[in-house]
Amino acid sequence: MPDRLVPHFQEELQQLKTRLLEMGGLAEDRVRSAVEGLVERDTQLVDRVLGGDVPINQLHIEIDSRCFKMLALYQPMAVDLRAIVSAVKINTDLERVGDLAINIAEAVRRYMRHPPVKELIDIPRMADIAQSMLRDSLDSYVRRDIVLAQNVLNQDDELDALKTQVFRDLLTHMLKDPATIEPSLDLILISRHLERIGDHATNIAEDVIFMVSARDVRHHAGEVGAS
Amino acid sequence: MPDRLVPHFQEELQQLKTRLLEMGGLAEDRVRSAVEGLVERDTQLVDRVLGGDVPINQLHIEIDSRCFKMLALYQPMAVDLRAIVSAVKINTDLERVGDLAINIAEAVRRYMRHPPVKELIDIPRMADIAQSMLRDSLDSYVRRDIVLAQNVLNQDDELDALKTQVFRDLLTHMLKDPATIEPSLDLILISRHLERIGDHATNIAEDVIFMVSARDVRHHAGEVGAS
Repeated sequence: MPDRLVPHFQEELQQLKTRLLEMGGLAEDRVRSAVEGLVERDTQLVDRVLGGDVPINQLHIEIDSRCFKMLALYQPMAVDLRAIVSAVKINTDLERVGDLAINIAEAVRRYMRHPPVKELIDIPRMADIAQSMLRDSLDSYVRRDIVLAQNVLNQDDELDALKTQVFRDLLTHMLKDPATIEPSLDLILISRHLERIGDHATNIAEDVIFMVSARDVRHHAGEVGAS
Repeated sequence: MPDRLVPHFQEELQQLKTRLLEMGGLAEDRVRSAVEGLVERDTQLVDRVLGGDVPINQLHIEIDSRCFKMLALYQPMAVDLRAIVSAVKINTDLERVGDLAINIAEAVRRYMRHPPVKELIDIPRMADIAQSMLRDSLDSYVRRDIVLAQNVLNQDDELDALKTQVFRDLLTHMLKDPATIEPSLDLILISRHLERIGDHATNIAEDVIFMVSARDVRHHAGEVGAS
């Protein structure tokens, strides 16, 4: 892009990053509230998640619009181009995390119609890991930090292991006492939703590695010629 | 873009569309095979799905690379810009559909360790609808056909209703006979995976409506200024 446009581009990129962090913060809050509502059996908290997706949806549209304007106006190249296209993809991932918070809240609402199946330990841990992955993936985008992005990819295995453990544990409860079948199903769904939040963080981290290095880590691919 | 580049851009856009259709075809085949493997209890078919994600992953990387090259080389504007950015997003959606085919195949493998819970009617129907949504969404991209894209959005309700029906039906089986709990869980997971394939088709259709009209139909939003 022409030299005179560089400072404007950098300023708008900074604003874009701020917006993405804001959206990530909203998404994370919603996941935290849904799981806290589950642990505390706090109906009000859960209902707030169910009713409150307007701000995140507005940010989703605003960020998309910013990205298209920046592509059209500055026609960025190489790492700058990848940064904007990555932002479009990250924006989509964060919007899905917001949707997953709603899915979790819906399952929590159903779960609370029954007595608790068990004390919840692994699901809150899954939520902590998923949220930390989300935060780290966004920080790695903002700081273009490949090491942090790689760290997100590593955390995903832990989340997967917990998901399997939750499943086995609840299966035992269901087999022992059919009264726990229905609420256990909701806990299993919640653990799957949390796993998917980790998947979105993984997507973001992979985008960051591609953005910074033009190296595609998906599917164990080698170099691609996009820089 | 300069007039002399227009024919080249159009030619490459045509190639890009062909590649996306090819990838959609691969993804659809894999979903069909996984569900056919479930219905026919055909281990070989299911194992072929589990082992065969290399072509789709290669296409995923190739399409992404094409998109970035086209953005950098032609610096397209308005609908052309939206077409390429949409292709990046659609490419991601199709890759996820390929992953979901693997998730389905894994659940089918576990399911086949048990006697069949019931005759399967709704799950194959869900698979048919999800595949048809996927095909229509890609056709709507290639032909820039908003009516067809809207039709995809409408089909999603049908898929949701079937998912709920599958869930209720299997819950009844699980409550009646604990021996069906474990295989029923896998059928429920399969129905969720199929629902998510419909969600990806919905994403694609929404992208197409945005691409053609610069109108954002997500979150019931109004016009956005990206054209």
